[in-house]
Amino acid sequence: MNVLCERILKDGKVYPGHILKVDGFLNHQIDVELLENIADLTYEYFKSEGITKVLTIEASGIAIATVVSQRFGVPLLFAKKSKTKNIAGDVYKTSVQSYTHDTVYDVIVSKEYISSDDRILIVDDFLAMGNALMGLIDLTEQAGATVGGICIAIEKGFQEGGRKIRAAGYNLYSLAVIDEMTDDGKITFR
Amino acid sequence: MNVLCERILKDGKVYPGHILKVDGFLNHQIDVELLENIADLTYEYFKSEGITKVLTIEASGIAIATVVSQRFGVPLLFAKKSKTKNIAGDVYKTSVQSYTHDTVYDVIVSKEYISSDDRILIVDDFLAMGNALMGLIDLTEQAGATVGGICIAIEKGFQEGGRKIRAAGYNLYSLAVIDEMTDDGKITFR
Repeated sequence: MNVLCERILKDGKVYPGHILKVDGFLNHQIDVELLENIADLTYEYFKSEGITKVLTIEASGIAIATVVSQRFGVPLLFAKKSKTKNIAGDVYKTSVQSYTHDTVYDVIVSKEYISSDDRILIVDDFLAMGNALMGLIDLTEQAGATVGGICIAIEKGFQEGGRKIRAAGYNLYSLAVIDEMTDDGKITFR
Repeated sequence: MNVLCERILKDGKVYPGHILKVDGFLNHQIDVELLENIADLTYEYFKSEGITKVLTIEASGIAIATVVSQRFGVPLLFAKKSKTKNIAGDVYKTSVQSYTHDTVYDVIVSKEYISSDDRILIVDDFLAMGNALMGLIDLTEQAGATVGGICIAIEKGFQEGGRKIRAAGYNLYSLAVIDEMTDDGKITFR
């Protein structure tokens, strides 16, 4: 059992409806030392993949992706959730269905920062239905870049995202795969 | 002239209407090594302030704040822009006027993660009118915590935020203060 699984058991909180709160160390308050441990494990797993850039999506994936980028020594690119006046023209765009907020939103990256020479490591904090991840894969492939790997902190193994992504042939590494969460708070890892 | 000012001159792009694009290294694609240099300068400036926690606001401040937290060896807390179902009850809340998007939004932090014992270092990427920063100061002071310092990557010195924050007595450290940007792209630092 790695440091993230141990921390989830220690400080994670399970609420009815398969909601796992990791607000104390992963996606509101953040334990940056834990992120460094996550980045080390991620580097060990993907170090031979020739990664040239890390791609994530705002907002809660940015902290993990920052430390992973640092570990790989490559730039970080984060996809933005809507078009602001601070991003001009030429962007790749995709649509993502949000499970948490029950809406659809557009996600963009500037064409300038991703090219067919890139081998992209996609990083995010959570994987459930896989919609955000499919969006990031779509953006990568629109650019003609290669998905060198996908790293997720916490995968909800009882939802279909992980199965779908693996079936499509992507190299998906989830540090903590939760196979079961009961309403009384018991967590079972794969 | 520090590394951030040098980088702005090299890779920043000025557009009419006092818009500075630093998308290539600071807030879309991110040069994590540059962030480490920013974190080192920030640590030098605030190392005697007894900082216990770094506070920022999603989304584009998170990457800088992550590396600053790492440098100080303290947790990072990022204020969230709206209440999602993944954050329960007890939060401090404030309202922020967005200059970029011309809207008002609520910003929250969980009461659980900020207390009167904390000395908070507030970190953000940009300071213009100071609205987001005033929101973060308000959240800190609602919790009875102390603002130990404020670190900004780029301050638009020709807008009123910095003057207002300094006049209120806060210890504000901006790595790059831009006093003038002309429509033909010339940047003058303070």
